[in-house]
Amino acid sequence: MAMEVLCFDLEGVFVPEIWINVAAHTGVEALKLTTRDVPDYDELMTYRLRTLDDHGLGIAEIQSVIASMEPMPGAREFLEWTHENFQVVILSDTFYQFAEPLMRQLGFPTLFCHNLEIGENNRIVDYHLRLPRQKEAAIRAFQGLNFTVFAVGDSYNDTGMLLAAEHGFLFKPPQNVIDEFPQLPVVTSYDQLKTQLIEASSREIA
Amino acid sequence: MAMEVLCFDLEGVFVPEIWINVAAHTGVEALKLTTRDVPDYDELMTYRLRTLDDHGLGIAEIQSVIASMEPMPGAREFLEWTHENFQVVILSDTFYQFAEPLMRQLGFPTLFCHNLEIGENNRIVDYHLRLPRQKEAAIRAFQGLNFTVFAVGDSYNDTGMLLAAEHGFLFKPPQNVIDEFPQLPVVTSYDQLKTQLIEASSREIA
Repeated sequence: MAMEVLCFDLEGVFVPEIWINVAAHTGVEALKLTTRDVPDYDELMTYRLRTLDDHGLGIAEIQSVIASMEPMPGAREFLEWTHENFQVVILSDTFYQFAEPLMRQLGFPTLFCHNLEIGENNRIVDYHLRLPRQKEAAIRAFQGLNFTVFAVGDSYNDTGMLLAAEHGFLFKPPQNVIDEFPQLPVVTSYDQLKTQLIEASSREIA
Repeated sequence: MAMEVLCFDLEGVFVPEIWINVAAHTGVEALKLTTRDVPDYDELMTYRLRTLDDHGLGIAEIQSVIASMEPMPGAREFLEWTHENFQVVILSDTFYQFAEPLMRQLGFPTLFCHNLEIGENNRIVDYHLRLPRQKEAAIRAFQGLNFTVFAVGDSYNDTGMLLAAEHGFLFKPPQNVIDEFPQLPVVTSYDQLKTQLIEASSREIA
């Protein structure tokens, strides 16, 4: 153990994409829209929350759907290994109330994400982003506390944190992200990531 | 779960004082000195490391002593409860290599502390403070990431973080700390702390 913090994205690294699964499990097609379809995040989220309302889906129903999801095979074991060797913080742009059933299955690692406002009758009233570009801001904060930062993510919204970290790794990224960020090493399995983390960490200590 | 980070001191809150136990288990009287005896921390640490050297005690021997220590009764269960309800980071002025055997028993929570430099033959060559006043700096960093911070500690070196946090609690503190910081609420058991955390957290959400 050295003075290193290891940050992970959540969806795509340890668990499947949450909204896609909620759409699939509830059968509500409109929930399949992503930022690729509606680039303005606030517009997309407002639309999603209205859609949930329209279908009478409150936080209890959504949490029940999410609880039926499972972390990716090997995720929990890999995460346990990382906790024995690094100080781990998960940086995700999901919401605490969505993540909770998955965090439980992952042994409740420390998670920095955003918040939903829940009203009467389990209704999701609004969403609150804790901070814009919070992943990158967290990396900078840990560096300000004199940590060397390792970061792992799979998608476009992770590239800010991966580039800010001393050691950034793309985990099973889509081809367009690989093409656009050739400076970021790509790993395709937990075993491969483990090897890369050990190597990069030894270089830090040496 | 709301946008809250909960920070804990380690020694005196979850585990016994490490140096005192190392002194007791090794029988090396000189290791009993604390900052009360040698106020200059660097002088104290330099003396401690020289003493370990003089007695042929390397990191392996010390870790073996520390591994024989146990968290306080109920510590692990309480810490598990906190992970289900908060984002938890332990802020300690110990060293990663000392904490490791105790972290293992506590399920490897995220820990921000300092580092020892280990040389050949397990010898502890030097110590590296990651940052001066690192506990308080971490609280400020989490606040900068737009978290409300809860903090729990037992002694003088925690008061900076307890005063910086939105909600600071003294856990089983010595009388002189109680007297000097009457503005900090005092709790004397995990159950009492749990009640106070729930109350303070509800007030935040309301």
